[in-house]
Amino acid sequence: MAELSVRSVLVTGANRGLGLGFVQHFLRMPKPPQWIFATCRDPKGQRAQLQCVGSAEVANPGSIKAAAAKVREHLGHSGLNLLINNAGMVKSKMLDAETLEDMTETYNTNTAGPLLMGQAFLPLLKKAAQESPDSGLSCSKAAIINISSIAGSISSFFGWEMIQATSYRCSKAALNMLSKCQSLAYKEHGILCVALHPGWVQTDLGPPTTVDDSVQGMLKVLSTLSEKETGAFLDWEGNVIPW
Amino acid sequence: MAELSVRSVLVTGANRGLGLGFVQHFLRMPKPPQWIFATCRDPKGQRAQLQCVGSAEVANPGSIKAAAAKVREHLGHSGLNLLINNAGMVKSKMLDAETLEDMTETYNTNTAGPLLMGQAFLPLLKKAAQESPDSGLSCSKAAIINISSIAGSISSFFGWEMIQATSYRCSKAALNMLSKCQSLAYKEHGILCVALHPGWVQTDLGPPTTVDDSVQGMLKVLSTLSEKETGAFLDWEGNVIPW
Repeated sequence: MAELSVRSVLVTGANRGLGLGFVQHFLRMPKPPQWIFATCRDPKGQRAQLQCVGSAEVANPGSIKAAAAKVREHLGHSGLNLLINNAGMVKSKMLDAETLEDMTETYNTNTAGPLLMGQAFLPLLKKAAQESPDSGLSCSKAAIINISSIAGSISSFFGWEMIQATSYRCSKAALNMLSKCQSLAYKEHGILCVALHPGWVQTDLGPPTTVDDSVQGMLKVLSTLSEKETGAFLDWEGNVIPW
Repeated sequence: MAELSVRSVLVTGANRGLGLGFVQHFLRMPKPPQWIFATCRDPKGQRAQLQCVGSAEVANPGSIKAAAAKVREHLGHSGLNLLINNAGMVKSKMLDAETLEDMTETYNTNTAGPLLMGQAFLPLLKKAAQESPDSGLSCSKAAIINISSIAGSISSFFGWEMIQATSYRCSKAALNMLSKCQSLAYKEHGILCVALHPGWVQTDLGPPTTVDDSVQGMLKVLSTLSEKETGAFLDWEGNVIPW
């Protein structure tokens, strides 16, 4: 297995679940990143299992800009290799119980958040790409990883009988579109962008894959990505998911 | 060509462009609907070419409920056959110029609006389905038509060099997901749901297809739809568009 080798990484929603799993796995690497920035909405929250370095409410432009300034300060003259947009939310409702507030809140967190994060950290990602000797695209160079879900695949349409969550599904379909838009807009800057389905993970939401297996699988996938995969929608085992 | 035969239809965003085209074509039919409800955000607006019967701001739950109550009053004991969610907006910006406000406003109008309209008019659509002697699904019986766009197709990814409009693309990808969700949730009630791409239409936005050709094409497509197509994404000529 090729080892992912990044000098700096930022993970949103890092206080628990997958986000926390990413941070733990990065720390355990034989050659861990020099910088791991872990952000979350409520760094002192009761359910937090990690005290995050900074607060970044991903749907709050001011909060994001402040986080980007702080990260830039820490990094000095170097760029940010890897931005993992992991923060997300789900409201598990039946279609007819969804409200305008559910739609807006879920979209702002799951879709607009990653857009704004990408914009705010673009200068640092560009810098990382410029610093890299590699000519192609890779996660070790500069990348935006959007944690999506197979629930956002209109073709697969996974798990409808189990959970309708229309506001969530719509936000993730839109996040997949955003990932494609980012991949096209940021390719010229040397930044790889993908949407990643972590498996149906054992977080607060429920069953199958463990956080550990999922994160380990995703990191393995990240280590193999190149310009061929930018703009793709992949699962934690590297399989392509249809839109 | 099979003729579309509906007793009642509601078109949102009906004061100009495609919405107005729909109303005009319905009026010109050999057997026009008994009821044509045309709504728009600003019935007295300067650019309006039709005085709408009622105001329905499609991202305003109160306004939608009021419109549904008014329509119910007019219809008396009968249901609504056809809901055409045509109202929409686009902000033509480059990815890096998009703001949280662009994302939210576009999503609320283009995606949350059709969700709320579907919820509010569900009782009337159900009633129309119950009144119909047909066992299958059809637009003459009961249907929700969401006017989407090929710009919302992640696979096709049409026109990126011409217009990035990420907030619009994300909202339309999400609208396609919503259409699929609606088709599954409302099938048991006898309601057909599809997402329809009107062609690249000559409205305020620009070139190719004329409003007249587009609406005529779409009405022809609507007349042919059955349970086989519910949940699909089709263009104005009836071709399936990949998600």
